[in-house]
Amino acid sequence: MLKTHPCGKLTKSDIGQTVILNGWVQRRRDLGGVLFIDLRDRTGIVQTVFNPDFSGDALAIADRARNEFVLAVQGTVVERDPETVNANLETGEIEVRVEKIEIMNAAKTPPFPIEDGVEVDESLRLKYRYLDLRRPEMQKTLLLRSKAAKIFRDFLDGEGFIDVETPILTKSSPEGARDYLVPSRVHEGEFFALPQSPQIFKQLLMVGGIERYYQIARCFRDEDLRADRQPEFTQVDIETSFLSQDQLLNMMEQLAAKLFRETVGVELALPFQRITYEDAINKYGSDKPDLRFGMEIQDITDIVATSEVKVFASVAASGGVVKAFNAKGCGGWSRKELDDLQPFAARYGGKGLAWITVKDGEWRGPIVKFLKPEEIAALTERLQVEDGDLLTFSADKKKVVVDVMGNLRLKVGRELGLIDDTKFKFVWVVDFPLLGWDEDAQRYVAEHHPFTRPHEDDLHLFDTDPGKIRAQAYDIVLNGYEVGGGSMRIYKREVQEKMFNALGLSSETAQQNFGYLLDAFEFGTPPHGGIAFGFDRLIMLLAGRTNLRETIAFPKTANATDLLCNAPSEVELSQLEQLHIRTVPKPAKQPAPVGAAPEAPQA
Amino acid sequence: MLKTHPCGKLTKSDIGQTVILNGWVQRRRDLGGVLFIDLRDRTGIVQTVFNPDFSGDALAIADRARNEFVLAVQGTVVERDPETVNANLETGEIEVRVEKIEIMNAAKTPPFPIEDGVEVDESLRLKYRYLDLRRPEMQKTLLLRSKAAKIFRDFLDGEGFIDVETPILTKSSPEGARDYLVPSRVHEGEFFALPQSPQIFKQLLMVGGIERYYQIARCFRDEDLRADRQPEFTQVDIETSFLSQDQLLNMMEQLAAKLFRETVGVELALPFQRITYEDAINKYGSDKPDLRFGMEIQDITDIVATSEVKVFASVAASGGVVKAFNAKGCGGWSRKELDDLQPFAARYGGKGLAWITVKDGEWRGPIVKFLKPEEIAALTERLQVEDGDLLTFSADKKKVVVDVMGNLRLKVGRELGLIDDTKFKFVWVVDFPLLGWDEDAQRYVAEHHPFTRPHEDDLHLFDTDPGKIRAQAYDIVLNGYEVGGGSMRIYKREVQEKMFNALGLSSETAQQNFGYLLDAFEFGTPPHGGIAFGFDRLIMLLAGRTNLRETIAFPKTANATDLLCNAPSEVELSQLEQLHIRTVPKPAKQPAPVGAAPEAPQA
Repeated sequence: MLKTHPCGKLTKSDIGQTVILNGWVQRRRDLGGVLFIDLRDRTGIVQTVFNPDFSGDALAIADRARNEFVLAVQGTVVERDPETVNANLETGEIEVRVEKIEIMNAAKTPPFPIEDGVEVDESLRLKYRYLDLRRPEMQKTLLLRSKAAKIFRDFLDGEGFIDVETPILTKSSPEGARDYLVPSRVHEGEFFALPQSPQIFKQLLMVGGIERYYQIARCFRDEDLRADRQPEFTQVDIETSFLSQDQLLNMMEQLAAKLFRETVGVELALPFQRITYEDAINKYGSDKPDLRFGMEIQDITDIVATSEVKVFASVAASGGVVKAFNAKGCGGWSRKELDDLQPFAARYGGKGLAWITVKDGEWRGPIVKFLKPEEIAALTERLQVEDGDLLTFSADKKKVVVDVMGNLRLKVGRELGLIDDTKFKFVWVVDFPLLGWDEDAQRYVAEHHPFTRPHEDDLHLFDTDPGKIRAQAYDIVLNGYEVGGGSMRIYKREVQEKMFNALGLSSETAQQNFGYLLDAFEFGTPPHGGIAFGFDRLIMLLAGRTNLRETIAFPKTANATDLLCNAPSEVELSQLEQLHIRTVPKPAKQPAPVGAAPEAPQA
Repeated sequence: MLKTHPCGKLTKSDIGQTVILNGWVQRRRDLGGVLFIDLRDRTGIVQTVFNPDFSGDALAIADRARNEFVLAVQGTVVERDPETVNANLETGEIEVRVEKIEIMNAAKTPPFPIEDGVEVDESLRLKYRYLDLRRPEMQKTLLLRSKAAKIFRDFLDGEGFIDVETPILTKSSPEGARDYLVPSRVHEGEFFALPQSPQIFKQLLMVGGIERYYQIARCFRDEDLRADRQPEFTQVDIETSFLSQDQLLNMMEQLAAKLFRETVGVELALPFQRITYEDAINKYGSDKPDLRFGMEIQDITDIVATSEVKVFASVAASGGVVKAFNAKGCGGWSRKELDDLQPFAARYGGKGLAWITVKDGEWRGPIVKFLKPEEIAALTERLQVEDGDLLTFSADKKKVVVDVMGNLRLKVGRELGLIDDTKFKFVWVVDFPLLGWDEDAQRYVAEHHPFTRPHEDDLHLFDTDPGKIRAQAYDIVLNGYEVGGGSMRIYKREVQEKMFNALGLSSETAQQNFGYLLDAFEFGTPPHGGIAFGFDRLIMLLAGRTNLRETIAFPKTANATDLLCNAPSEVELSQLEQLHIRTVPKPAKQPAPVGAAPEAPQA
């Protein structure tokens, strides 16, 4: 008795048909000797009816079925009585009068109900993931994920990209996050590493003349996990030769437009806005600004450089910055709300947050009495001050001020209801700095990765001021989330050597770790560049979820455990012997990983 | 100067157009001050011309270019003089008169020429894989692979299959081949394992109500490698609920038909032949018979059970078998060829191979004098003996005889030119035995894998003769290669327990290793089954190659080394400390892996 029809798609047009359905018991009701079983499959739910008048033996058998039993039923599709029509159900106008039944499998009572919005501890859901996956919202998300992957592939295939698989067992790299290592049985004392991304391979494919490559690739980072991290994650990895940054970005916009059109029915406005990293930091206090609302942050260091507000003047004098943010319409915040700004600023490293409320043309707040009239005039103009506004001020090192103000802007945006959750606002952040200074290591690190191409105009700065070099690197940001990033790549060996040099990698170390890439560059490397999309995070945003684990069939917990199959786990000693390793009982100290930030958004 | 046109696609219809081309120098010729450069990109080759009349400065710049330099040229497409048309080139009717040139990158002389059929040591090709990939035959194979993946996806998507990613960091399993292990930084002394296949996860997805799943999945086996093995390989992994074996097999035939139609333009004859494992072994001496030719092997144990040929009679008496194979038309083999049959048989474990030649109605050979007239009569009929035939005989334990005769059949088929290399002959081998007896371990092992569903009719044999149970398992065989395999799965816990019991897995061990699957089966598991195609091997056959490494962009050598990036390699001690492991300097003994044969074809 194998299905002839899906449960959830039967309609009035099927009335009179004999159908076989297979599915799970969603619920059962016994109304005076007539048994109603809602049968569920991947497509939805349909009501089946068992009645002594037409069900014969099937009624007694059906009576043994409980929730989540697997049934095969054969019956006739009939119209429901008007008063029993269920408008909440796609199949609500019909029901199936069952003539034959087979209990395909029994079921114990599940540990939580198989329905949307179930409120149950996530660890229980993960342990019984196979039951969790039966819930319609999980099925919908996995279907969306599959569909999105198909859209990516169809688009890229249409643009002449070749799907190439790159190795999972590869070589450990000294840059970036921690590698997962795999001991080798054949090569004693040696290890493979799982790739943090296919970065080097995709560049080698460009050297290999593939010209356009893509892969929906599994990547691995042994990092300490946060809510939006997974030890293994998926990225849509893309690389092209002979395309300019603009050509690539335009193509990716078309791809995003297709993705959103065909999954959530949203027509994205093209082209996406492009702002420089510098602008993003200055105006929005973030390199992944949420542009669903405006409210820019203003630098006022020049205005208050000689202010009587001592902290402003001293910060300005010592090379710091003073920034102001006009929380428009928040002038009526209570004293408690204003007081709460201090711990809020502290959370992001700020020592405090000065504020001024503006009401009936009057400025109030602790610092107002120290402001000179000309400062008030200049602030009024720059901050476009109006009645009802709340002005906030942060003075510190630039990094701290940026963080505090960026987060304050988001907080105010959210509280004022300026963030439309149904909106998808993309923006390209471009011109990232090539190098960042690592205070701990006292050296430069690659902001993107060590193969990122510097702006041609900035090459001379390698010798004078490497920190000022702009990279031909870009992130694609959606609603304040980085959903992708990439760069044009260095393709000339002399530039690559300058880069390694700036990173403090000795030519020996560079040759040891990237020698094959450096060698490859000598054999006719085309200009190339690429991008990687964080597939898990993109699906999360598309599906309107807030947790990456909701987008992955079998995710790991925040401490990198698979609760379903209980991995990792102990293994047999003989397995370790074959691999020429043994475990070390005493925990070793765990130094933080050094090196550059990874290229791709981690999810 | 980024490309406006592909090199290899310019035709007479482009004459008069100004084009920008980007590509690699395939070769250069200087003919009396006029320079011809064949420029190559992914699409092919076009001739560019540099002439003082129209090239200006470009000529002098072009003169610096050597093979594999990357050039950008701008010029006009013109018709070639009739006498210079190159019929071997798709673009042979035109050439490009260059007006502008940019040397995008220089190139050292490559270690081997970038052209098809290059005769160079494979290890050199692997070390410089990025150059090897530039060769047209490699590009064509990778393109074919990408296209084949797309066809699989399109077909399966159309049939309602959902592409679901399953974990790479998962749990070590006691059955099957050796696992690659991954130490855990967070969980001291514990290990992840890389999956040998997504077997358990795909079954859990069926428990989870996904109903139709597929994934082009990377799998890992730490086995000793042969020519057609790779430590990591790709399979198209498929699982369905609520389908019968016949429904699934029919659907997969449609998939194969689409694949061959759209890649190599071959129309496969449907339905594929289906033969039982028993028949395949008996008639063709192989569970992956090459049916591009006939020549069946015959069992003659009954005929010679009381023969004067002592070895026949004694083997028959001791429970062995005697098989004969009529190598039709080989009656004229030389004495040397006939003598060579002995070492050939020995290679497959045979102690010898008796033979008889038939010429002018006369039987000749060492054993003829011992054959009784009625035996000759019976053999004549069963082996359909004609003049010019060569009869061969093997007597031994069944396994040995099957191996010897199966391989002899292939050898003869090849030598007689009966195997048409342009033909694609699929066959399903069905009704595999569920269990095989492992002499070393003195226990049953799963022939397919421990979740394979026995035939309903054979369930009673668990208690009496488990070795006789037929499995609902099938392989798909192409030209003598297993290119896929699968089974209907056990979905009732009581059957699964019988199976583990037959495998000698204690319920404690079973629960420890597969507990979550056993648990899952209690919550309403649908009837389900699936298949996995060995993607690498399928591409190898489609592309007409004989080596899996030709189908993989970055393969590993037979001793599991990546010659390009030099993996595996030593890592820093601090990395091992973080993972709570250390290497053991002295090699430990390496016991052979125990357990069942893997489900999927390894390639």
